[in-house]
Amino acid sequence: MEKIQQLKERFDAFMNGVDFNRVPNALYDPIAYTVLQKGKRLRPMLCLLACDMFGGEFHEAKYPALALETAHNFTLIHDDIMDQAPLRRGKETVYKKWNTNQAILSGDAALVMAYDFATRTHRPVEVVSLLNQVLLEICEGQQYDMDFETQTEVTIPEYLEMIRLKTAVLLATSLQIGAVVANADEEDQKFLYDFGLALGMAFQLQDDILDCYSDVAVFGKVTGGDIVENKKTMMYLKALELASPEQRSRLSGLFSGAIVLNPQRKIDEVIALYDELCVKEAVESQMTDYFHQAKVCLDAVKLPDDRKVHLRHYADLLSGRDK
Amino acid sequence: MEKIQQLKERFDAFMNGVDFNRVPNALYDPIAYTVLQKGKRLRPMLCLLACDMFGGEFHEAKYPALALETAHNFTLIHDDIMDQAPLRRGKETVYKKWNTNQAILSGDAALVMAYDFATRTHRPVEVVSLLNQVLLEICEGQQYDMDFETQTEVTIPEYLEMIRLKTAVLLATSLQIGAVVANADEEDQKFLYDFGLALGMAFQLQDDILDCYSDVAVFGKVTGGDIVENKKTMMYLKALELASPEQRSRLSGLFSGAIVLNPQRKIDEVIALYDELCVKEAVESQMTDYFHQAKVCLDAVKLPDDRKVHLRHYADLLSGRDK
Repeated sequence: MEKIQQLKERFDAFMNGVDFNRVPNALYDPIAYTVLQKGKRLRPMLCLLACDMFGGEFHEAKYPALALETAHNFTLIHDDIMDQAPLRRGKETVYKKWNTNQAILSGDAALVMAYDFATRTHRPVEVVSLLNQVLLEICEGQQYDMDFETQTEVTIPEYLEMIRLKTAVLLATSLQIGAVVANADEEDQKFLYDFGLALGMAFQLQDDILDCYSDVAVFGKVTGGDIVENKKTMMYLKALELASPEQRSRLSGLFSGAIVLNPQRKIDEVIALYDELCVKEAVESQMTDYFHQAKVCLDAVKLPDDRKVHLRHYADLLSGRDK
Repeated sequence: MEKIQQLKERFDAFMNGVDFNRVPNALYDPIAYTVLQKGKRLRPMLCLLACDMFGGEFHEAKYPALALETAHNFTLIHDDIMDQAPLRRGKETVYKKWNTNQAILSGDAALVMAYDFATRTHRPVEVVSLLNQVLLEICEGQQYDMDFETQTEVTIPEYLEMIRLKTAVLLATSLQIGAVVANADEEDQKFLYDFGLALGMAFQLQDDILDCYSDVAVFGKVTGGDIVENKKTMMYLKALELASPEQRSRLSGLFSGAIVLNPQRKIDEVIALYDELCVKEAVESQMTDYFHQAKVCLDAVKLPDDRKVHLRHYADLLSGRDK
């Protein structure tokens, strides 16, 4: 725990020293606004913890970690335009606070800055190549996510592939980059990548569950937001799978707009249906499988167990399992 | 001339072999649509000619050249959204043919692909670093260009800085990258960079002139487009500089919308004013200075003159001076 705290503080201090206030301000202000918001720095932390686990130096991982954070923020700035999302982490999104053109251009510049940070390490080619691969996958994931909105049938494998690309691969790559700059061998890089992938899938399923079963105070989002927006999350897809023909047509009707209810009644009715079908339990079981898969991958890394304790603890913290 | 033709054909053949038809199609189709349109491949050609001049191998320059072309097309896809431009090279722009979200996302993916191509050479770190620098400059140039639309006073030095960033640096960097992959020394890289910078400035001023003095059949654009859109080009800024107070207020009135005329009358009146003030001659003289500056930089490269003949000839071709 102390190690986690210490890395977080060191990284925050490092980020505070990076100059985001460049000229022209109009271009760089939205980047500083987004990147410098307080947050848990999930991707940098995974990178730094992976590097530390293999005995790597903080100073070799700090810029790649910043590259990951900046690249992640680039995707948020552009996704929020595409999704027309007014708020992010409780603050106005860039396209709302400024405008769409500014969000496009500042997002672009953020992506280029990420590549600039990515080269500032002793293994620049590997880091840039991993960034190329993961960013293209994230674009593909966002494409599938957009396609799903107008696609009447989405299968569970299609959904899992979408969240793999849109969310999980960046966590996996963050860990792999940490391993690369610490000179871990390729097999261990792969174990860590797969650990991150499974973790990312589990987190996303957890998010899908929490949208239906959590309160705003804890989760920071309105319960049922996915339902109101007709998002085809795992909760919805699993419910369709488990439903009787009559229940299926009711659920599809509610999500397609064929059956119109006021938002709160719609949420209540959908969740009642999920309860009847034990959807929460089914998705939780899938999530548990992914957490287990993650554990197996971390176990496989060829290091003594005491080197893995911080990363394992960090993952437990994030999954809420330490409570 | 044969050398130029030959490099162009080799590059076109190489590009035809690159796979742009990836999955999901929705993401990659707009990229293929944009990048694979026939064109003069200005940036790749500058890169290839520079590489060839220093005795470098085509296969070391072809991917960096493709990276430059792809990065350029990324800027076009996003700029066309920001400028709401319906047509580009006589065809529908991506955001018009598809939609804004698709143009944002496919543009992003094009940028990542450019970085992927940039690493496929024996000097990946230098090429990626040069790409980082130039792409950030292009974003800055686009920012200034957007700012100018609402800025009442734009000075000539501000305008020159904007076109340097938005247009000239990419030509300069294309040449430098060609020199880098051919292992030219840093001094020669700098001479070539400065050659490209001056050339880029000259071309932009040429464009500004041609918007007022050319016919559609030759230039492919409507004459007077910049005037109709109130673009503060060098023609306009130079006219303001040379104008009497009375002429200045008339010109500002026409460009600010304070004086309203139908488009053709506005064009005619503005060009009549330019003629009175000999603006064309003034801007031509500035353009000639840049062409001269370019010549001096190319002369300075430490190579025998017969190595420079193709690049010099190519620049002459582009400037229309060989006619």
